[in-house]
Amino acid sequence: MVCMDIITGGVTAAKGFQAASTAAGIKYQGRADMAMVFSEVPAVSAGTFTRNVVKAAPVKWDREVVETERCAQAVVINAGIANAGTGAEGMAYCKRTAETGGSLLDISARQVLVASTGVIGMQLPMEKLEAGIREMAPNLSGSLESGHQASCAIMTTDTKPKEVAVIFEVDGKMVTVGGMCKGSGMIHPNMCTMLSFVTTDIAISKELLQEALREDVEDTYNMVSVDGDTSTNDTVLLLANGMAGNTEIREKDGNYRKFQEALHYVNAALARKIAADGEGATALFEAKVIHADTKEHAKVLAKSVVSSSLSKAAIYGHDSNWGRFLCAMGYSGVEFDPEAVELFFQSKAGRIQIYKDGVSTDYSEEEAARILSEDEVTFLADMKMGDEKAVAWGCDLTYDYVKINADYRS
Amino acid sequence: MVCMDIITGGVTAAKGFQAASTAAGIKYQGRADMAMVFSEVPAVSAGTFTRNVVKAAPVKWDREVVETERCAQAVVINAGIANAGTGAEGMAYCKRTAETGGSLLDISARQVLVASTGVIGMQLPMEKLEAGIREMAPNLSGSLESGHQASCAIMTTDTKPKEVAVIFEVDGKMVTVGGMCKGSGMIHPNMCTMLSFVTTDIAISKELLQEALREDVEDTYNMVSVDGDTSTNDTVLLLANGMAGNTEIREKDGNYRKFQEALHYVNAALARKIAADGEGATALFEAKVIHADTKEHAKVLAKSVVSSSLSKAAIYGHDSNWGRFLCAMGYSGVEFDPEAVELFFQSKAGRIQIYKDGVSTDYSEEEAARILSEDEVTFLADMKMGDEKAVAWGCDLTYDYVKINADYRS
Repeated sequence: MVCMDIITGGVTAAKGFQAASTAAGIKYQGRADMAMVFSEVPAVSAGTFTRNVVKAAPVKWDREVVETERCAQAVVINAGIANAGTGAEGMAYCKRTAETGGSLLDISARQVLVASTGVIGMQLPMEKLEAGIREMAPNLSGSLESGHQASCAIMTTDTKPKEVAVIFEVDGKMVTVGGMCKGSGMIHPNMCTMLSFVTTDIAISKELLQEALREDVEDTYNMVSVDGDTSTNDTVLLLANGMAGNTEIREKDGNYRKFQEALHYVNAALARKIAADGEGATALFEAKVIHADTKEHAKVLAKSVVSSSLSKAAIYGHDSNWGRFLCAMGYSGVEFDPEAVELFFQSKAGRIQIYKDGVSTDYSEEEAARILSEDEVTFLADMKMGDEKAVAWGCDLTYDYVKINADYRS
Repeated sequence: MVCMDIITGGVTAAKGFQAASTAAGIKYQGRADMAMVFSEVPAVSAGTFTRNVVKAAPVKWDREVVETERCAQAVVINAGIANAGTGAEGMAYCKRTAETGGSLLDISARQVLVASTGVIGMQLPMEKLEAGIREMAPNLSGSLESGHQASCAIMTTDTKPKEVAVIFEVDGKMVTVGGMCKGSGMIHPNMCTMLSFVTTDIAISKELLQEALREDVEDTYNMVSVDGDTSTNDTVLLLANGMAGNTEIREKDGNYRKFQEALHYVNAALARKIAADGEGATALFEAKVIHADTKEHAKVLAKSVVSSSLSKAAIYGHDSNWGRFLCAMGYSGVEFDPEAVELFFQSKAGRIQIYKDGVSTDYSEEEAARILSEDEVTFLADMKMGDEKAVAWGCDLTYDYVKINADYRS
């Protein structure tokens, strides 16, 4: 029983969080490409980062700061250049970004987190970046609009900004969890995802905040795949500033579980948005696995299906070619009996069983095509093995994915 | 020191091997879609098959026959329908194919191997298949042309037939190894690949034939990826009929090593052809990893790069966006120091170093684009860790890949 309300807003929805953005001209022209998030008071910080061996400079900076400092108070984000594959110079730029931000905001550089997204291998134009920070600092605002503008500024090949916020009650106090994130290529998180920034005014201990985030990332961002490429920059940051006024959560009680549910809602909604706005995508492609023998197997099966190029192309073609989906389950590494599995397609337009007892059901191709023509489609596999389930999110594979990525730098 | 000559021909190049093909109308119209390979005398058989949990009926049939019978004498192949996801009915069709072939060729059904490629989930039109077998049996011929026609008949979305043959000397006798194979989608072999049929007139024991094939598949077909999808039907069959007249090879002596080298040449050449003719491909995309700490790591790194959608799209765009290639190495699961690695692109048009000491080299983008515009391009990673190396083969990711797979069944 989840009790929460979905509200308008994103990273500034929670009390005491402000945002600003600006067009710093880092790589894009004529659009905002930098954002800043600020908490009026120090906020307990948690983070999860890419498991890619090649880690961007800001990932190294943030990981170190989140692990050694209890709190953070600001995040400086740029789009266009990833600051990855940039060596010692890139690390120095990170430090300078935090120092510039810290001095303008009158906080320690060790309270400033940094995030970058864009092309790998180029150095940041540091003067433009610093000018951007100077531009943003005096313009911080707690309005929903400033949060929305920030969610637009961090986009790269995203076609839509991505924000979610919810409110719920703890100790009679209203608590808010809100966030923004960006995709939309090099998306196959193996630890956490792309860039996602979630803020909350709940009061909670550092340890529980980190644990709640780490656990939830496994079922949300880590279940998204756009193209199988795990980025060098994947970062999820979660800041909790305690301004809701609840008694600090220090154990896994009912209040902690309420927070977990709210956090899960926000993370899952952001993850779905990333999948739906995958590069070139025309549809959100969801794979649900039910009645699996273990949770891990359910997850591996679901993720194998949404990662399969052929399944993704079939979704694009509205083609109920279930062999490709079953094939992707088969090479996932999970053992199962192909004769026992039952397969379905479903969407707003209906639900159809396509495979049973090891063969195709006598289904209507036309009806299947109609179901697959919606902008959110689900492939459902009933494993008939146990009680575990999982959901993974991807998108279809389209001409535009190729176009975007063959031309990305030009 | 390899001593062999590359000769014209394929599956009928070796002594005593015949082939035939016909247009049975199984799914395609107006083109040959069935082939038969026959050895005048029983041939020692070896095979490797897909590790996909979902195995096509012919894979199950062949595996059982190869494991329990020392010899085989014929292979019946159809394109258009994969006979996978077809349950007990599909298995019965396999058996009937072998029985029909066996009775017409006057051999036991247990000497007849079967292979299918095409759409998953449809049942074979058995009358057409049997008519095709009756058509082919009297037309078997040992000519190179009949082998070539067979290599055309087994194509699905392939744009080119794929044949290779070599000759070398054993005990003063000329020995031939030749083969044909087909791709070109659902290609990410995790055991062996697609359909490949290799014949040789060498005399060799069953155990050594199987061992030579099993080992070589790991470095050839298993290093190819077109789209990351491991098929339900992947099959490599190797038949050795002893008609070259050499003393049977029964131990790992110099003659065995000569055979290994010839087999490797044929398998590697066929594997490269599959990659180069990947669905929609405009270029063969080769990844070479040198100076890795272990052979396994070298292979994992090379395969991760050729499997990366973003790297493949960059090859299509002739874009030296090396961050994507380094990123794909980074998420492969292999530990390495990104600051130590050196990266290069090379092709017939030249060679260029693009990454060193953790940052981009000061290379010319124009020169890199010129190098990447060839129809065979190589990404080279020098790990600086040891002496092991590996090569993987893939292709670029293009609009046509999407087109082919969004429309495949229509």
